[in-house]
Amino acid sequence: MEANRIRGVLAPVVTPFKADLSPDRERFIAHCKWLLSQNCGLAVFGTNSEANSMSAEERMTLLDALVAAGMDSARMMPGTGCCSISETVELTAHAVNHGCAGVLMLPPFYYKNVGEEGLYRYFSEVVQRVGDTRLRIYLYHIPPVAVVGITPKLVERLLQAYPSAIAGMKDSSGDWNNTKTFLDAFAVRAGRADSTAGAARTFDVFVGSESFLLANICNGGAGTISATANVNPAAIYELYQMAVGASASTGAELEALQGRLNVVREVFARMSWPSMIAALKQAIAIYRNDPEWARVRPPLVGLTTEQARNLAAELEKIEFSIKLGGS
Amino acid sequence: MEANRIRGVLAPVVTPFKADLSPDRERFIAHCKWLLSQNCGLAVFGTNSEANSMSAEERMTLLDALVAAGMDSARMMPGTGCCSISETVELTAHAVNHGCAGVLMLPPFYYKNVGEEGLYRYFSEVVQRVGDTRLRIYLYHIPPVAVVGITPKLVERLLQAYPSAIAGMKDSSGDWNNTKTFLDAFAVRAGRADSTAGAARTFDVFVGSESFLLANICNGGAGTISATANVNPAAIYELYQMAVGASASTGAELEALQGRLNVVREVFARMSWPSMIAALKQAIAIYRNDPEWARVRPPLVGLTTEQARNLAAELEKIEFSIKLGGS
Repeated sequence: MEANRIRGVLAPVVTPFKADLSPDRERFIAHCKWLLSQNCGLAVFGTNSEANSMSAEERMTLLDALVAAGMDSARMMPGTGCCSISETVELTAHAVNHGCAGVLMLPPFYYKNVGEEGLYRYFSEVVQRVGDTRLRIYLYHIPPVAVVGITPKLVERLLQAYPSAIAGMKDSSGDWNNTKTFLDAFAVRAGRADSTAGAARTFDVFVGSESFLLANICNGGAGTISATANVNPAAIYELYQMAVGASASTGAELEALQGRLNVVREVFARMSWPSMIAALKQAIAIYRNDPEWARVRPPLVGLTTEQARNLAAELEKIEFSIKLGGS
Repeated sequence: MEANRIRGVLAPVVTPFKADLSPDRERFIAHCKWLLSQNCGLAVFGTNSEANSMSAEERMTLLDALVAAGMDSARMMPGTGCCSISETVELTAHAVNHGCAGVLMLPPFYYKNVGEEGLYRYFSEVVQRVGDTRLRIYLYHIPPVAVVGITPKLVERLLQAYPSAIAGMKDSSGDWNNTKTFLDAFAVRAGRADSTAGAARTFDVFVGSESFLLANICNGGAGTISATANVNPAAIYELYQMAVGASASTGAELEALQGRLNVVREVFARMSWPSMIAALKQAIAIYRNDPEWARVRPPLVGLTTEQARNLAAELEKIEFSIKLGGS
């Protein structure tokens, strides 16, 4: 297992937009700094970041800004998967050159029913074109949105061909059985030194919701990349730390904390997706007392006044609060 | 009805790629010239063009090349719909500045379940940002691939707000009842002068397969934008001409020609999609005697040797042949 692989809790960082819908660099930097201060890594440009509502150039400019602001790229895993090899390679090479810990890569999601062979060729082209030993790809499985998904057979072939570049995956299927299948097939096995191949393989599985964090860690997973980490990073990180055994804790304590995380998650997950993105931004607007944060880019729409009021009431009811202020 | 609107038969032009997978400009230009010589308009960068497997820059470079080669942009309807407003606006403005007849615009297709309001805001932003009276948008409904679709209510709202910019649609649902719904709601009504609005509205419906061409024209439609127009443009155009009454023909003659078009279409449609794209390219490779044409970009895969052999045999069996040579 590589010692320096990114693990733990990451947020698919929500992207603030100005009134003209351009990315709001200052608010983005402030939020990223706060997340890092909470031991939360930056999976910028994920689904919840509205990354696919931004151009490749807008994403690269924002990543440049984070690095220029002095943030540690070893704590970053930008989303770089587009529909085209050309754009995916451009974004990925850009992230690698910034020294990012890895990239979270959607499969090309426009053409449906493309099959494993086509996806294998796609990812192969990307790995070969980027051509950098520092490349660490985390395959992004999110069938409810991308429709095109990542299968165990695809991972098997890619790991065989590119054991160093294929570093892991994020499973946002919402189906624990699916996560377990990948863990059993790749993560656990990877823990053993494979003398035939000459090196131990590592395949790090991140769950797409902290609801599965405890189960994931107990089964050899690497952490979580979760939307709600945008607002609840400290508590999620606490569970991660307890689960990996950094602090002595009983099973009951772990379960209790997992239960508390789930209560918060549920408030946001209750919004039918993709309204969850608007709800997260609305929550940040509330805790920062900054209505600018509520803005989303079409085709997403912000919460209605009533939805926003209900969200505030629900968060108050569960006594949830965060200090988003200083960085 | 505007006299200069593009109508008739258009091909979502297949894009040839070189061995390094970069777009093959020369072969692309040659194929476009041949299509124009067959009275077939150029819906470049459609689904069958593998447009979503290309970057925005690659598409703009190819369009520049077509115009530089002296081809008439009034016969072009490039696909410009991306997931992000920024890229869609960039590609659309580029096409408008080249004097293209219109643009074929996919809805933003990453986020699912976004609803009519979100799509309305998205298209509104695009129209306003392009801000050009020459803009003619053809909304692209292709639910089997994009998943996100175009609804009658959305068209109603967009037409109300932007009667000049919203010029029509391409219906690739494969469901004639759906096409008929749009024709009845918008195309036929548009033919009447609307004295309240001060101008007659035109909403041109193109079907995504020539199998529906006769029915479409008989019901007030504008033509077809069909993958098979890449290989069978002359016959499809002949039916279009006959159907609009340019040449005297009986119902039986029309039906007979429609039947013959369907036989050719069926050979390609039999390949499970998206293999149809590989099959079209393979057919061009056969008729041009140029194996280079068969190449596709991952995640698509080319036909196997056996599939290619079967395709050739089937085309021979129906006695289909075309001269793709000179331009």
